[in-house]
Amino acid sequence: MASLDSVLSCIDLNLDRSLGRLFDLLRIPSISTDPNYKGECRRAADYLAGDLAAIGFAASVRDTNGHPMVLARHEGPEGAPHVLFYGHYDVQPVDPIELWTSEPFEPVVKEAPDGSKRIVARGAADDKGQLMTFVEACRAFKAETGSLPCGVTILFEGEEESGSPSLLPFLEAHRDELKADAALVCDTNMWDRRTPAISTGLRGLVGEEIVIKAASRDLHSGYYGGAAANPLHILSKIVADLHDETGRVTIPGFYDGVGEVPDAVKAQWDNLGFSEQAFLGEVGLSVPAGEKGRSVLEQTWSRPTAEVNGMIGGYTGAGFKTVIAAEARAKISFRLVFDQDPAAIREAFRAFVTAKLPADCTVEFHAHGGSGAIQLPFDSPWIAAAREALTDEWPNEAAMIGMGGSIPIAGEFKHRLGMETLLVGFGNGDDAIHSPNEKYEMTSFHKGQRSWARILDRLGKGVAV
Amino acid sequence: MASLDSVLSCIDLNLDRSLGRLFDLLRIPSISTDPNYKGECRRAADYLAGDLAAIGFAASVRDTNGHPMVLARHEGPEGAPHVLFYGHYDVQPVDPIELWTSEPFEPVVKEAPDGSKRIVARGAADDKGQLMTFVEACRAFKAETGSLPCGVTILFEGEEESGSPSLLPFLEAHRDELKADAALVCDTNMWDRRTPAISTGLRGLVGEEIVIKAASRDLHSGYYGGAAANPLHILSKIVADLHDETGRVTIPGFYDGVGEVPDAVKAQWDNLGFSEQAFLGEVGLSVPAGEKGRSVLEQTWSRPTAEVNGMIGGYTGAGFKTVIAAEARAKISFRLVFDQDPAAIREAFRAFVTAKLPADCTVEFHAHGGSGAIQLPFDSPWIAAAREALTDEWPNEAAMIGMGGSIPIAGEFKHRLGMETLLVGFGNGDDAIHSPNEKYEMTSFHKGQRSWARILDRLGKGVAV
Repeated sequence: MASLDSVLSCIDLNLDRSLGRLFDLLRIPSISTDPNYKGECRRAADYLAGDLAAIGFAASVRDTNGHPMVLARHEGPEGAPHVLFYGHYDVQPVDPIELWTSEPFEPVVKEAPDGSKRIVARGAADDKGQLMTFVEACRAFKAETGSLPCGVTILFEGEEESGSPSLLPFLEAHRDELKADAALVCDTNMWDRRTPAISTGLRGLVGEEIVIKAASRDLHSGYYGGAAANPLHILSKIVADLHDETGRVTIPGFYDGVGEVPDAVKAQWDNLGFSEQAFLGEVGLSVPAGEKGRSVLEQTWSRPTAEVNGMIGGYTGAGFKTVIAAEARAKISFRLVFDQDPAAIREAFRAFVTAKLPADCTVEFHAHGGSGAIQLPFDSPWIAAAREALTDEWPNEAAMIGMGGSIPIAGEFKHRLGMETLLVGFGNGDDAIHSPNEKYEMTSFHKGQRSWARILDRLGKGVAV
Repeated sequence: MASLDSVLSCIDLNLDRSLGRLFDLLRIPSISTDPNYKGECRRAADYLAGDLAAIGFAASVRDTNGHPMVLARHEGPEGAPHVLFYGHYDVQPVDPIELWTSEPFEPVVKEAPDGSKRIVARGAADDKGQLMTFVEACRAFKAETGSLPCGVTILFEGEEESGSPSLLPFLEAHRDELKADAALVCDTNMWDRRTPAISTGLRGLVGEEIVIKAASRDLHSGYYGGAAANPLHILSKIVADLHDETGRVTIPGFYDGVGEVPDAVKAQWDNLGFSEQAFLGEVGLSVPAGEKGRSVLEQTWSRPTAEVNGMIGGYTGAGFKTVIAAEARAKISFRLVFDQDPAAIREAFRAFVTAKLPADCTVEFHAHGGSGAIQLPFDSPWIAAAREALTDEWPNEAAMIGMGGSIPIAGEFKHRLGMETLLVGFGNGDDAIHSPNEKYEMTSFHKGQRSWARILDRLGKGVAV
């Protein structure tokens, strides 16, 4: 315990410096989905590789067909397990920019009404702040002990927010370098501010963009209105038809492979003290809008969804223009659970849309990423070890929870490298990731570093697999 | 006839100069709906007032709460009728700009495959080219005879493309100046390239913009998807529900005041030689998409419509963003016929939308203009006089047709100033008004001037009202 104590103390003493390093990373606008920020993504990768090398990792930036990967390795003591830590340095776009109260890429520490501090910037929580908690834990171990308690490989991706197109080829090509005893991912939330969480389930994701076209050019709605097909009407009908009146998705075969959560697990969820009113109320809602007869935790953790994420067509500027647009577009994503097959869902959706097209209309489909859901065994020894360590750091025992979001890498680690993934994160539900004024609690940043130090220390003592 | 012949000959000899003047006007980007072009709208008004003054009109630019009006007056011979000519100097926005093959505000003359010439620019047909045919006819009369054959008041508006908010107050405030024996409007099409047309019916227009809001901010579709209301789904459902499976509009009371076209008129339309295949085929369509059981001429001339002109929400940039938007917007317009009441339609639509809102959702409505349809008597002596004059100029006799578009001023002239409006225009169906590469046939510009000279000459001889 002596060395762990000194590591924790080193983390406490260096909090300001670790914050400065995080700010340097947050200042890099590494928006992966927008081609204009390609150079910034590489700059973020270079920054991280340099920082890891300074700590003592064998670190390098690896090119892909898209944004580069950062890969770094540090051996552990003989006989200790070796873990793979994954994070992503890319961030979401910042629009609507006018709703930010400070510049998205000029990080600041703000004080909340309760006196707590928070780091505000795009990427503060998702995922730069989170991944740096692990890096800082490693730095403190090296500074205090000259080594790490177990072997660590670090993989930072730059395309997590844009469908991870380069990830699978990279995993396949570097299988030997990446293989470890287990994977660690820090891209998830705490259960609440006093209760850390280990996520045992994650929804998958299929993204599709569709473009409906009718006339060969935009038409005057006076001359043609009433006779010409309107792609916005057709697209709206398709979107409206995606759900029935009970909130279920109507695409044929959509629920193939969707299982039910065992009663024991539902009972554990019921005991978490989750308040639907508070969860919805925080964002101005009061009634669960999804599948009827399901709790909000079921709706977001164990049920699949179809959501329109963006839609555009015709004249959308100031004023009015009486036009019938030649085309209309929508970005639609599906959250998958259990054994739903991403490829089958994509095909079923495309068939669903195509069958609804009236005469003279065409549709283009563009795929934007696809990954299945994952479900970890509740009795994993890795989970047990992490729970011990987390419970030492936080006021409450760590909860085992589900997750509505998608972290495609977890499924790939399982299916391609045969590793379980330990999903431990220090985000909070109000972090506004993907939204204006994204923030990360200073407590998350500080105690997150301490948590990883405890987990690494605990894993270094061995895991009974 | 001697003086008319010399006027026509003056028009022929000065075609190049008249084209130069039109180009000067087309170079002014007077986009009324976009506040960035406010100064350009005034510049267009100043240009026209100056030109009319140079011809000999008492011309001035009159301020309004929006873009200014141009008002000009020239007395005619004792006992001759006095007409009010109306046109609009404002133009539509130019997007999608990337589809233009030349700059929208750098007019050029291009040769069509058949050797005919056309003027290409935003506003070439709608309405700068058309209004200048009348101005040039007046200029030729003044040059050749020193006077005009009848009294002429000219009113040029700068807000026709953005709902004409200042028009009614202006008509009310200047009722005495504007009152005339009849109104002339040049903002419509020929029947075909050899057949001039007089429009006896025009659809009205109601524009509405709606904003559907749910959560207080954009949400991550992983954390909230399945539980949170999605404004794009709600908007799509509203749009999808606007029409039933036969293409009829489902808003309660929408068809109140909609009459049927008399069989005799339908028979005249059937004899026009209109080809639905050609009309739709020209813009890449083949099947009438609107109300079932109606011909395309009925659908566009005598039936009301509900069309979405623009829709936007969520992430619409490059790539993908898994967001549930806080709001979704649509611009929706209604074309009205017969006695449909614009105010009643607006209220019925708003009630229809409000009734469909689920829990936690709100809607904002923004009005964008409203005007009823007009239907001229088929036996008007003004129409008879204009037909005579037009038939002298063109190969075929002038047709009496309906119109799908809306020219709100015609209804206002009738209801507020008690004047009939003669709708004579020289546009063609392929002019691409409101679209990229708008054009106006050189023949329309040239023979349009000659047509107005003949009509003014004919009206100067008296109309038996």
